[in-house]
Amino acid sequence: MIKTRLTDRFELEHPIVSAPMAFAAGGRLAAAVTNAGALGLIGGGYGDTDWLEQAFSDAGNTRVGCGLITWKLAEQPEVLQVVLDRDPAAMFLSFGDPMPFAGQIAEAGIPLICQVQTLRDARRAAEAGAAVIVAQGSEAGGHGERRATLTLVPEVADWLAGNAPEVLLLAAGGIADGRGLAAALMLGADGVLVGSRLWASAEADVSQAMVAAAISATGDDTIRSTVMDRARLLNWPDRYTARVLQNAFTDRWHNDLAGLLAQAETESAKWKAGWAEGDPERANTFVGEAAGLIHDRPSAAEIIARMSHEADALLRGASGRLG
Amino acid sequence: MIKTRLTDRFELEHPIVSAPMAFAAGGRLAAAVTNAGALGLIGGGYGDTDWLEQAFSDAGNTRVGCGLITWKLAEQPEVLQVVLDRDPAAMFLSFGDPMPFAGQIAEAGIPLICQVQTLRDARRAAEAGAAVIVAQGSEAGGHGERRATLTLVPEVADWLAGNAPEVLLLAAGGIADGRGLAAALMLGADGVLVGSRLWASAEADVSQAMVAAAISATGDDTIRSTVMDRARLLNWPDRYTARVLQNAFTDRWHNDLAGLLAQAETESAKWKAGWAEGDPERANTFVGEAAGLIHDRPSAAEIIARMSHEADALLRGASGRLG
Ligand SMILES: Cc1cc2nc3c(=O)[nH]c(=O)nc-3n(C[C@H](O)[C@H](O)[C@H](O)COP(=O)(O)O)c2cc1C
Ligand SMILES: Cc1cc2nc3c(=O)[nH]c(=O)nc-3n(C[C@H](O)[C@H](O)[C@H](O)COP(=O)(O)O)c2cc1C
Repeated sequence: MIKTRLTDRFELEHPIVSAPMAFAAGGRLAAAVTNAGALGLIGGGYGDTDWLEQAFSDAGNTRVGCGLITWKLAEQPEVLQVVLDRDPAAMFLSFGDPMPFAGQIAEAGIPLICQVQTLRDARRAAEAGAAVIVAQGSEAGGHGERRATLTLVPEVADWLAGNAPEVLLLAAGGIADGRGLAAALMLGADGVLVGSRLWASAEADVSQAMVAAAISATGDDTIRSTVMDRARLLNWPDRYTARVLQNAFTDRWHNDLAGLLAQAETESAKWKAGWAEGDPERANTFVGEAAGLIHDRPSAAEIIARMSHEADALLRGASGRLG
Repeated sequence: MIKTRLTDRFELEHPIVSAPMAFAAGGRLAAAVTNAGALGLIGGGYGDTDWLEQAFSDAGNTRVGCGLITWKLAEQPEVLQVVLDRDPAAMFLSFGDPMPFAGQIAEAGIPLICQVQTLRDARRAAEAGAAVIVAQGSEAGGHGERRATLTLVPEVADWLAGNAPEVLLLAAGGIADGRGLAAALMLGADGVLVGSRLWASAEADVSQAMVAAAISATGDDTIRSTVMDRARLLNWPDRYTARVLQNAFTDRWHNDLAGLLAQAETESAKWKAGWAEGDPERANTFVGEAAGLIHDRPSAAEIIARMSHEADALLRGASGRLG
């Protein structure tokens, strides 16, 4: 079993946290992850409080954390207290400035996890008092930015070592098996945040058609784009794009945003109807480059056991590579 | 010392190959790398035969390999024989279809190394008979594509394991220290191709001003763009962009390619004049996200010793992470 500062601090068996994936990570997935010895997070996303209450209730007595999208939280700051009242194992913020919310989270005594996409934002997160920083690379599924996990993690690790050594560091983006977990530890992370791989688990709230599309895709078949957010009429700040499987919708609009906006109403209605049905043709499948490493849809417990077992074997055998 | 199939096959002390960086990797750098126990490659780039003769002559009796940009080689296929006549330790092709050149390289008895940016291209390289495939992620300095090293390497490793297990695999993009090397081995690579870190070595043909710009940059400060190639009037195929340090030139033109083309002549003259002087303000500094991990300009031998030593310690200590 792999021991790191993360497993110590959060009393976990595995240095793995599940990503708070909007829509996909409800209480069932989060609880399954925690029950498997990792840390499960509910994907509170855009902060629908009815959905959040349902998710916490689905998690039952299992202790889980929760994530919210920061720029959206800033539009409806009252959602934070709704989550804090459920005494989450951690509060996870990503995609915006965490500073305005850090005090309230600290007062509630909940550890703050900040996901960042640049070194600049990592500094800001440390300043906000994050207990854990997640360095997210562009290969990640869902929203993100340009930098890659492989360089962002060691660069943030170096900065933290010199400036905030008590802050833990997780790697996110492209980690779907024990090789990715072992690599992340070599890069200086205390553990990993896993999205896409757990998105394709039995407990995730994702249509079978979308998971099937991801399973038959290679990592070459994803794209970072903003057209899905435009179709959903979401006000994502310009710097963030989302990684999805390419399909006819992205083929048509990715290089013609003006054209999409000109037909926003009809295109939006079509996309949303496809999304409601979990149709990977009419809507987009939010998954990362790790799609190329995903070949089945097992339980979350099975995924975590496999990752951990494979990483364990790699670390155990590592010194055997020395001549 | 780390032993892999790469060190065995090429009789190296370290599982490290230097990237064939156009303009920057002349005979001096390539020879320094080989003499340090790794494999040094001359960056034959666009195939200037006078430059190539000079580079091989600068390498002296030290055995080095050579890289050429494939789509450019296709325009002047006679350059290949010029290189093969120098009996290089390996012939490295990237950015285009290697198939038309594979036979001639095989006949000369020279191992073919193909750098690829997608799984699709990795399959093609194996079909062409590559002895080594380099999976290059988007974090890399210089030209490349969209996929990240962290997912491309294990995905190509899986494909090779099932289809061409005799082909070696290197990771490229974002590897600048022992952490990156150890991570690459965990991902299933037999070694690494290192560009940016060796670009900032004493032996590289790079201006002090450009190296200084990279040293003071963080990994947040690079961008993938095509505007430098347009300014240089190079016919790079659309799929490839180049990673450089952002500066006033990319700020001005990255989102206004039409505007740049409208003023191509004057802008091109200015950019090229800056390039000739090694000026990071008027021309662009070709370096990867690993800029954030580069803090000095030591000798190539020192860089390789550090990487190897650090990776060695990480692999040696890896099993100590198990509880
Ligand atoms: C379907 C999906 C939805 C996501 N939704 C969110 C979200 O609401 N908030 C968030 O912070 N991150 C979200 N992410 C990003 C994850 O937090 C994480 O960075 C990412 O999944 C890691 O990369 P991976 O997918 O390669 O594992 C989402 C990812 C996926 C795949
Ligand atoms: C200055 C520079 C020039 C490059 N020129 C070439 C080239 O001519 N041909 C090539 O195949 N790759 C070239 N590359 C890409 C490298 O082969 C390699 O993929 C890359 O440097 C690896 O990523 P890293 O820079 O993060 O180490 C270049 C890279 C740099 C930094």
